[in-house]
Amino acid sequence: MLTRLAPLAFAAVASLLGMSAAFAQNQEPIQPIVPPQQVNLGMVELGKKLYFDPRLSKSGFISCNSCHNLSMGGTDNIPTSIGDKWQQGPINAPTVLNSSLNVAQFWDGRAADLKAQAGGPIANPGEMAFSHTLAIGILASIPAYQREFKQVFGKDKIDIEQVTLAIAEFEKTLVTPNSRFDQWLLGKKDALTADEQAGYKLFKESGCVACHNGPAVGGNSFQKMGIVQAYKASSPAEGRSAVTGKDIDRFTFKVPTLRNVEMTYPYFHDGAANTLTQAVDVMGRLQLGKNFTKDENAKIVSFLKTLTGDQPSFTLPILPPSSDTTPRPSPFK
Amino acid sequence: MLTRLAPLAFAAVASLLGMSAAFAQNQEPIQPIVPPQQVNLGMVELGKKLYFDPRLSKSGFISCNSCHNLSMGGTDNIPTSIGDKWQQGPINAPTVLNSSLNVAQFWDGRAADLKAQAGGPIANPGEMAFSHTLAIGILASIPAYQREFKQVFGKDKIDIEQVTLAIAEFEKTLVTPNSRFDQWLLGKKDALTADEQAGYKLFKESGCVACHNGPAVGGNSFQKMGIVQAYKASSPAEGRSAVTGKDIDRFTFKVPTLRNVEMTYPYFHDGAANTLTQAVDVMGRLQLGKNFTKDENAKIVSFLKTLTGDQPSFTLPILPPSSDTTPRPSPFK
Repeated sequence: MLTRLAPLAFAAVASLLGMSAAFAQNQEPIQPIVPPQQVNLGMVELGKKLYFDPRLSKSGFISCNSCHNLSMGGTDNIPTSIGDKWQQGPINAPTVLNSSLNVAQFWDGRAADLKAQAGGPIANPGEMAFSHTLAIGILASIPAYQREFKQVFGKDKIDIEQVTLAIAEFEKTLVTPNSRFDQWLLGKKDALTADEQAGYKLFKESGCVACHNGPAVGGNSFQKMGIVQAYKASSPAEGRSAVTGKDIDRFTFKVPTLRNVEMTYPYFHDGAANTLTQAVDVMGRLQLGKNFTKDENAKIVSFLKTLTGDQPSFTLPILPPSSDTTPRPSPFK
Repeated sequence: MLTRLAPLAFAAVASLLGMSAAFAQNQEPIQPIVPPQQVNLGMVELGKKLYFDPRLSKSGFISCNSCHNLSMGGTDNIPTSIGDKWQQGPINAPTVLNSSLNVAQFWDGRAADLKAQAGGPIANPGEMAFSHTLAIGILASIPAYQREFKQVFGKDKIDIEQVTLAIAEFEKTLVTPNSRFDQWLLGKKDALTADEQAGYKLFKESGCVACHNGPAVGGNSFQKMGIVQAYKASSPAEGRSAVTGKDIDRFTFKVPTLRNVEMTYPYFHDGAANTLTQAVDVMGRLQLGKNFTKDENAKIVSFLKTLTGDQPSFTLPILPPSSDTTPRPSPFK
C-alpha cells in the first residue's frame, strides 16, 4: 500500500515545490542562476564600499568599479582596460557578474577564487598601481573604516585578508537571476519567443553548449581559442600556459560566461569582437567549423539576449572621508 | 476682538508649523538646505543615467561621476582632476552637491547654470574630450535611450539641450539637507556640542561668514583669493578675469560652498590644502588677517564638520547597452 501511494505523494509534493520544472531543467545543459544561499551581510556592505573606493589605487582615481562597472554589466565595455596613468591593459576585463560561479578567476585562471583575485589589481603596476601595505595604511587611517572592519572581523588591525574577503563577499551577491531564459527553464513557457527557442536549439545542436554550459553558461572550463582554425589575436596574452607552464595550454582561456552577454561587449579575451553577431560567427567557424547562416546567427543572438538577468540593485555607497592623517593619493607622480 | 486674537492665533499656527525656529533662522547668516520643491522625475531618472554614462566621453571611461563622485562628496578628492589620456586638469573639481544653489557654475562662473555647465566637460579636450555631436550620435544609436528621451521630452530627435537639461535636473536633486547644523538651526538645540557652537560663533565673529553665508554657506558671490596677503597658487588659473576680461577680477573665484566640506578635500581652487585645519589657517591669514589659535582653529573645524548633510541616496543606475550600430569608444587613439 505504502509503495503504491509513495510515487503519487511524491508527485504531489514535487508539484507543490515546482519540481516538475526542476526535472525539466535537469535535462538541460544550462541551469538557472541561484542567488547566494548564505552571505555575511556586514561583510557585504563593507566590501561594497571597498569595491567603489578609488583610494585603493595609487592615483585615488581607479576603483574595482572603474573596470568592472556595475552600471554596465560588470565590465568597462572597452577592448582592454585603462590602468594607472592611462596604461593600456593586456586583456579584456571579464565581467564580475556571476563570477562566483567561475572555476577560477582571470582569463588564465591564475587566481583560485574571488578572494585571491581581489588583491591582484590593487598591486598590479598596470592597473591600480598601489601596494597592499599602502592600501591598508589608507584604510587604517580612516576612523569609520576602522570601526566597520572591527565590527565585521572583530579584530583591531585591518589586513589585506580582510579587505579581499569583504570584496569577495560583496562580489558573491553580484548574481543575475530571473533572466527570461531562466524563467523559461523554470517553466514559464511563453518567456521565450519561437526564434529565441530556435536559437537555443541551434546553440545546443551546433555544439556551443559543449563549453558554454552550467548555470553561468560558461566559466567552468578552460578551452583553446581557435580549435578548428587559429585565432589571430590582437593581444599578446597566451592564456593558461602562463599559469601551468605547459605548451599545450597556449591560447587556452577560461570559457567566459554568457550570462548578460548583451551587456558585456566587446567580446573575446582581446575584446576584438564588437557585436554578438561577430562573436557568434567567429566562434562558429574557429571553434566548431560551422558557418552559421545569417538566419541561424540571428536566432542564436536572439537566444543569447535572453540571458540578461536582474542586474544587482543597491544604493550607491557613501565612502567615509579621509582623516587628516590619511596619506594622499599620487595621481600625477 | 479679532485684532486682539490674531497675534495669538498666529503664534499658535506658527508654533504648529515650527515657525519659531524659522524666526530664529532669520537672524542667522546661514539658512537650512531646502530640498527641491519641484522636479521632473522622468528627467531626473534619465539625467542620473547620463551622469553615470562614460559613453559621453571619447574614451568610454570618464563620466560626470568620475570627477564629481557621489560616493565621495560629489568630488574626486584629488587636487586637480584626471582627464582623457590622464591629462592633468587646471583646477580642483568643485563639488556637485548643492551646486544648484550657486550663483553661477565653475570656479570662474563662466556657466550661468547647471544646464550650461553640463555640456562643458563633455566637449573639453582635457576632460571627456568628446563632442556634443558625437555624444548625441552614441545616445541616438541606443534604443532604450531613444525611448526614454522620447518619453521625457516628447520628441523623436535627441539633442544636446535635452542631454544637459536632464543632467541638470538630476543635479538639482543632489542637495544635502538635515546636517546637524541645520537641525540646530531648525531648533534642535542639542544637535551641536558646546565646541561646535563656539566654532560657529568664531566663524561669524571673525568674518568668515561675510563670504560663506546663505543656505550653501558660500557659492553666492565671487571674491578675491588673497585679500590681506597674496595667495601663492600652485595652479595657473586666474579666475573670474578669464570671463570678464577685467584685470580687477584676477584671482577672483566663486566662493566655494562649505556644505559637506569634511568630504570635499583637498581645498581651494588649486586643491593645495589637504586638511580643514590648513584651509582655516590660510583663510584666516590671507582673507581676514587673523591668526587663529590652535584652539580657535579646532573649534571652527568642528563647526565645519557639522555641515555634512544627508548624502544623495539612490540605486546605482543600470545603463542600457550599446547596439550593434553604436560607435565604439576610442580609449587609446
